[in-house]
Amino acid sequence: MSSESDGPRVPEGIPELTAEEAAATIADDAVMTVSGFGSVGYPKEVPLALADSGRDLELTVISGGSVGDEIDTAMVESGAIARRFPYQATSIAREKVNDGTIAMHDRHISSLGDDVVFEQLASPDVAVVEAVAVGEDWLIPSTSIGHTPAFVEQAPELLVEVNETQPRNLSRFHDVYRPAMPPNREPIPITDPGERVGDAKVSFDPDTLRGVVRTDRRDSTYSFRDPTDDDTAIAANLRDFLEAEIARNPVFAEAVRLQFGVGSLGNALMGELGDAEFGDRTVSYFGEVIQDGLLDMLDAGDLDVASATTLALSADGQDRLFGNIEAYEDEVVLRPADISNSPELIARMGVFAVNSALEVDVYGHVNSTHVNGSHLINGLGGSGDFNRSSAVATVALPSTASGGDISRIVPMVPHVDHTEHDVGIVITEQGTADLRGLSPRERALEVIDNCAHPDYRADLRDYYERAREQGGHVPHDLETAYDWTG
Amino acid sequence: MSSESDGPRVPEGIPELTAEEAAATIADDAVMTVSGFGSVGYPKEVPLALADSGRDLELTVISGGSVGDEIDTAMVESGAIARRFPYQATSIAREKVNDGTIAMHDRHISSLGDDVVFEQLASPDVAVVEAVAVGEDWLIPSTSIGHTPAFVEQAPELLVEVNETQPRNLSRFHDVYRPAMPPNREPIPITDPGERVGDAKVSFDPDTLRGVVRTDRRDSTYSFRDPTDDDTAIAANLRDFLEAEIARNPVFAEAVRLQFGVGSLGNALMGELGDAEFGDRTVSYFGEVIQDGLLDMLDAGDLDVASATTLALSADGQDRLFGNIEAYEDEVVLRPADISNSPELIARMGVFAVNSALEVDVYGHVNSTHVNGSHLINGLGGSGDFNRSSAVATVALPSTASGGDISRIVPMVPHVDHTEHDVGIVITEQGTADLRGLSPRERALEVIDNCAHPDYRADLRDYYERAREQGGHVPHDLETAYDWTG
Repeated sequence: MSSESDGPRVPEGIPELTAEEAAATIADDAVMTVSGFGSVGYPKEVPLALADSGRDLELTVISGGSVGDEIDTAMVESGAIARRFPYQATSIAREKVNDGTIAMHDRHISSLGDDVVFEQLASPDVAVVEAVAVGEDWLIPSTSIGHTPAFVEQAPELLVEVNETQPRNLSRFHDVYRPAMPPNREPIPITDPGERVGDAKVSFDPDTLRGVVRTDRRDSTYSFRDPTDDDTAIAANLRDFLEAEIARNPVFAEAVRLQFGVGSLGNALMGELGDAEFGDRTVSYFGEVIQDGLLDMLDAGDLDVASATTLALSADGQDRLFGNIEAYEDEVVLRPADISNSPELIARMGVFAVNSALEVDVYGHVNSTHVNGSHLINGLGGSGDFNRSSAVATVALPSTASGGDISRIVPMVPHVDHTEHDVGIVITEQGTADLRGLSPRERALEVIDNCAHPDYRADLRDYYERAREQGGHVPHDLETAYDWTG
Repeated sequence: MSSESDGPRVPEGIPELTAEEAAATIADDAVMTVSGFGSVGYPKEVPLALADSGRDLELTVISGGSVGDEIDTAMVESGAIARRFPYQATSIAREKVNDGTIAMHDRHISSLGDDVVFEQLASPDVAVVEAVAVGEDWLIPSTSIGHTPAFVEQAPELLVEVNETQPRNLSRFHDVYRPAMPPNREPIPITDPGERVGDAKVSFDPDTLRGVVRTDRRDSTYSFRDPTDDDTAIAANLRDFLEAEIARNPVFAEAVRLQFGVGSLGNALMGELGDAEFGDRTVSYFGEVIQDGLLDMLDAGDLDVASATTLALSADGQDRLFGNIEAYEDEVVLRPADISNSPELIARMGVFAVNSALEVDVYGHVNSTHVNGSHLINGLGGSGDFNRSSAVATVALPSTASGGDISRIVPMVPHVDHTEHDVGIVITEQGTADLRGLSPRERALEVIDNCAHPDYRADLRDYYERAREQGGHVPHDLETAYDWTG
């Protein structure tokens, strides 16, 4: 392995700071980029010191994806965060975004690195990133890479938290490739999920390093609920569809590159797909997060390799992986988030994508983010990257919510994250709607008949008939589109 | 130039057919792919023969983009078309799509080639394409390339119309690069709008060629209206924004790659941007259509090179270009539509994109296609390709329609083609809203104050206040979202 695996985690000559000293270098209204993705690999000490500082802070915080409670709970509770991009996943951050206290805007994960480097969101003042080791002009990220390379490249000041509880040889998973700025940007030279084209290290300008803070605080780990009956039924429908599709579609004749969205449903789906019949195809994962279900597939030999930007594992999953990193080093690749989620690569690889959603309308528009079109849950994440660019975009969700009181199949979603032009397949525990090549009128019947819960089919059909009387390519009755149950 | 520029347009030994003979080889319910994009370069004789055949046809017609009246008027009027992908731009096709007679679904231009090759829309039976010359296993497309390479590759049967009115040396513009099927797909080896990496010819399996039909029917040509006062005001606002943005944004430090959507507004904008201050930057066009305004910019030396998939010119523009092809051959490149519109290339090049829309909501969602959310105008075209993948996505539109009776700035668009996550800038004749880095609540005020017509600002603010009382990240009052004027 590379020489940076040896030697001290923080060599002599690198300035070490306490968390309080580091926090004091950050201005009250600074724009702060932070490492972290899938709630792991984020800085912990400096955020806690900021939260506890008693200062009147109005920080802008930009992360790659979700981060842990030290940022999105402690800093939010202390009122330190005025602006937040592009994703959050805690109850207090959600509350503050929805009541307007925190200004947020969720962006596609794939474009966030460029958004920061092009200064299209804000102009960063400082990057605070977690590492397993640091040198004069490099650092090795910990459990996620996320947008750390872009953040470090763009920040005029850099604070590094070296986490001594994270295994140092996480470096064996890392493959850091950093695209140049247009007009000098070259093709991303990756054609296979397992291909390595970069380095384990993230380079930085040594003049930007303000100091290193040591920490022994652990990542929060995921906990997945046990699969529900709906999860199991959705997984069975997905498996049936996947087997038929890979037999039919020439793009899957030799290889299947899978992606699953984050969460308990995604994790359950990964677990079930080990049983699918892939024939002699190479099966690999090209996605955003590595969850426990993927480790199961790797261990069972159902999966060749898994590429992502984060290790969003349960405590059990961390024990399995971290206790045996060498055994997995050829099978697990962690990449920057603008590479793991790159539309260029997703399209090139011909990915079969499976993402969840809050609700889907009968014409195939998808709401992933906003209850009643207004109240944010977490954010868009990478769902738009994969739904838009994959060869087959599958949306998997239960047909109802709230114990059956709410249909997740609706006439018109009140917030659109993914359009009818992007989504091909809808799968619920009721069945599968294949929308490809269908007109909107045909789609409506396909979704109602195959995916809606039987309790809601009559009302959905009534809506569709009412809308059809008004004509149009995508028939709608705007007066009752959001008030359609009989 | 290449040897295929010499010799007869149809060499001896190639079977020639009358249009009627060719049409007779097509089954009543065939899936027919046709060349054509931007209403030029489409087959004319075989479609007319089908329209005049008196047969009871139920054809599926798949084109790259819009085609002329021989297909989308004559064939539609005769009732020959049962299903149509992915775009149309005639009044009769629009009527038949909206009344449900023709089943249609509009797709992103960039993904249509893959949609056809992966058989995700329908399984093609025959390709009918226009060429300026044909050989045993190759043809040279005429005024557009569109998706001809994918169509010809996938079709079990091929009919070629050789159009003797089209200049044979149109071949000098063509650069045909054809991506392989995943998992063997490589990076598209293009990093500059002017780069040529392919051939002038489209190759085909000689066993598929059923015959060649000669024609001397000309393309329909575009006619652009004179710029309106609104067009001129929008263009001035765009120019101001563009100048400020290229001075600020590091992605434009060395080069500016522009894209404009098709239509009279787009053409007017191109005409006005010749006056913009680009400094010593290389300015080029990486888009979908070449319209007259681009020829003006090329002639004035304001533009280095223009890359697109079609020559959607007026009769004057055709005369200028076709009369002097050698003078333009280094400045004009025509590519397959999955290359001209490739998300991979749009992102790599850092494109500054300008596309029009039907309406925009205060949070930045865009409706490009459906009046009242239901009645299709033309289709999505390439707007999603460029809005999603460009470095800066700009939507330009007048603030009102119908002589001021309708606001194009609305609380909630009833059909979303481009989400808030994709669009950065909204420009009307009133001004410019820069939505980047703003929360939805901030966006609403930015759009209302800068882009809405003064006659509608009070009602829009009333809606926003009403919505804000209900809370949420993207405040909405669903009861009045579509019935908001006071």
